[in-house]
Amino acid sequence: MTLYEIITKKKHNAELSTEEIEWVVAGFCRGDIPDYQMSALLMAVCFNSLSDRETADLTMAMARSGDMLRPETGGFNADKHSTGGVGDKITLIAAPIAAACGVFVPKMSGRGLGHTGGTIDKLESIPGFCTELPYDKFIGTVKKAGFAVAGQTGTLVPADKKIYALRNATATVDSIPLICSSIMSKKLATGADGIVLDVKVGDGAFMKTEADAEKLAAAMVRVGQLAGRKCSAVLTDMSKPLGRAVGNSIEVIEAIEALKGNARDDIREISLALAAEMLVTAGKGDTEQCLAMAENALTTGAALERFKLMIELQGGDPHVTEDYGLFGKARYCREIFADRSGFINAVACEKTGLIALRLGAGRQTKDADIDPTAGIVFDKTAGDFVSRGERLAALYTSAECDLDSIAAEFEGVFQIGDEKESTAKKNIIKIVKGY
Amino acid sequence: MTLYEIITKKKHNAELSTEEIEWVVAGFCRGDIPDYQMSALLMAVCFNSLSDRETADLTMAMARSGDMLRPETGGFNADKHSTGGVGDKITLIAAPIAAACGVFVPKMSGRGLGHTGGTIDKLESIPGFCTELPYDKFIGTVKKAGFAVAGQTGTLVPADKKIYALRNATATVDSIPLICSSIMSKKLATGADGIVLDVKVGDGAFMKTEADAEKLAAAMVRVGQLAGRKCSAVLTDMSKPLGRAVGNSIEVIEAIEALKGNARDDIREISLALAAEMLVTAGKGDTEQCLAMAENALTTGAALERFKLMIELQGGDPHVTEDYGLFGKARYCREIFADRSGFINAVACEKTGLIALRLGAGRQTKDADIDPTAGIVFDKTAGDFVSRGERLAALYTSAECDLDSIAAEFEGVFQIGDEKESTAKKNIIKIVKGY
Repeated sequence: MTLYEIITKKKHNAELSTEEIEWVVAGFCRGDIPDYQMSALLMAVCFNSLSDRETADLTMAMARSGDMLRPETGGFNADKHSTGGVGDKITLIAAPIAAACGVFVPKMSGRGLGHTGGTIDKLESIPGFCTELPYDKFIGTVKKAGFAVAGQTGTLVPADKKIYALRNATATVDSIPLICSSIMSKKLATGADGIVLDVKVGDGAFMKTEADAEKLAAAMVRVGQLAGRKCSAVLTDMSKPLGRAVGNSIEVIEAIEALKGNARDDIREISLALAAEMLVTAGKGDTEQCLAMAENALTTGAALERFKLMIELQGGDPHVTEDYGLFGKARYCREIFADRSGFINAVACEKTGLIALRLGAGRQTKDADIDPTAGIVFDKTAGDFVSRGERLAALYTSAECDLDSIAAEFEGVFQIGDEKESTAKKNIIKIVKGY
Repeated sequence: MTLYEIITKKKHNAELSTEEIEWVVAGFCRGDIPDYQMSALLMAVCFNSLSDRETADLTMAMARSGDMLRPETGGFNADKHSTGGVGDKITLIAAPIAAACGVFVPKMSGRGLGHTGGTIDKLESIPGFCTELPYDKFIGTVKKAGFAVAGQTGTLVPADKKIYALRNATATVDSIPLICSSIMSKKLATGADGIVLDVKVGDGAFMKTEADAEKLAAAMVRVGQLAGRKCSAVLTDMSKPLGRAVGNSIEVIEAIEALKGNARDDIREISLALAAEMLVTAGKGDTEQCLAMAENALTTGAALERFKLMIELQGGDPHVTEDYGLFGKARYCREIFADRSGFINAVACEKTGLIALRLGAGRQTKDADIDPTAGIVFDKTAGDFVSRGERLAALYTSAECDLDSIAAEFEGVFQIGDEKESTAKKNIIKIVKGY
């Protein structure tokens, strides 16, 4: 077996065998296969794709390149993953809801890079909160609070790290089977019994079209099934920023408000849907029953209690849930007002993410620091009527940045017209079930 | 400008600008662009191809990566290149014919690798013959004999060496624009005014189909024209071995016989056609007139005189043309006889080349030694009738190899049937003209 032959096969659109795929992943991890051959293979995959079987084989081979965790919580473990959006704090709401309904959620999360934020970065805006937990402490927290959120421990999926770095340098990122294997190899390695995927669709997401999002969702669900996990994917709208806040501490505050029952419709609906899917994978009932359980966990405050307990167990100050003044405050604020009256027909989503990045809410490079106070809070969203002079949003930062130019750019985020255009998207586009 | 953007453009089938192509070639030669990015770009080119303009830009950028020679012979310089075949000794016949008709042929040639032989390897079977000439001695020989054949001097097209090595490791060889740029960059850098390409088609050639060969021919001729050279390509048959001999000294002997007027039809016809094309590019007349001039140079023995003079000037013993005993002789010979009577309907060409390689006539790896005495001489070819027990061919080698197994494999080269199949191919399939 040589990589030359394998590249040739894939270039001519032939199906690779399980042995060939395992040989490639193992050889690349060991350093036996040089980057320049691997990148040629990855480019051939971008053009000729992978079959379901090949995708599942690649995902499993990648998962097995490092530790395969089995979280010993004594119950059903569900995991939730988002493909990345702007203002996406759904984990902070859906995980405590699921926990309150008796499902364990041992959530290992990544840091943000680029215009989509990381859950860990958001939680670290809570004073004292620690995301670097030894594995047994992580599992201990899950057993007590029902969920925990920590960074990855051990050597999880080294193959993905190595392959992703190469894809990122060779324009081979946007291949559905490669995206699928990257996401699902990590989900399989962390060992959850149920996996619920939030596949974002639209301007602010990686998948710009519903068709692509559905392909990715279907691929991930099939891989999960083939690996013996209960799995489903929820396609959700990312054509406008999710909720009111885009940032770190301000997103945590919005999540707490949501747990208190004060959520904007999109946040509430998507959080409940994802929590319910976790319950369904755990066999707690059908979708309708599980949605009712999830709503009940919100109404009774049980989910909020789980959230507070989790904060405390991870070293944070649980009083932040009552006193938002305990969060750091941004040194600079710039309010944005409407320069005309009319209907807001669009709020540019990716652009919002990029501006939040400029304000310091995200990382431009892997090792950059984050400003936990930075971000954007929206007063208005798509579909709202606004009067000239009304506040649209506020920009926050603690950095000495050129707020005039950022504010000028931000004005272009809002598209305001005389007529209300019927471009409203459903929050939940579709659910792809694999259980 | 980043290579990431350029890969993305080509991946999405956009046309690269001249500046982008020049930047890629220069950056890759300097080592600024890593192999793993270049191989991803090359694979994207394999899928989305290059336009004529991009191909010409790539070829020129590669040519200019090293020395750009201008052979100062004081006359019109024609070059001839073959895409590689089995038994291809055409240069040894066509070049002295063209030289005898007043066109200079400063031929820089490569060594053989794989199943197609190199002209330099063949000539080195002549006792004393030297192919490593300083450039001024090379040009001096051209001025006196009308032609010379030497290895490359100086740093000719380092970009091609580097790119080809990467293509060879990443299954990105079979792309027509990449093949075109590899061949033509060297032709442009050696500075000929006229370039005649022998594009081989069939089982023993790199281009297996007439359609692909024609595409490659058209691409090369266009690039030649865009670079201001007179250029044409002759598509010739490579569905069976060319001529009677496949090897080194035995091919030189066949070429000498051809120069004496004793050539098999295929050798005679193709040699005359290529020589005539060289004369046409030099403005010596139209194809018909130039063919007549070429035939005359054979009939009068003028071409043979040029060949002898060239051998002498390059340090070889010109008496080899009268006494073939001066060549080294193979230690082992194995004759192959027909095991049945019938019509020979095919002589497997690539297989012949691979067997010649096993006998020692070619190089399996870049640094391997060649056995100048090794090879195959055919008594019969496709279309001939053979009687049971008649000799079909003889295998030669000076190495201790397993002649029994090689001979057994060689028997499969001949396809003999009761009926004569009308599968005969024309020797000259087509001429693509660019003058």
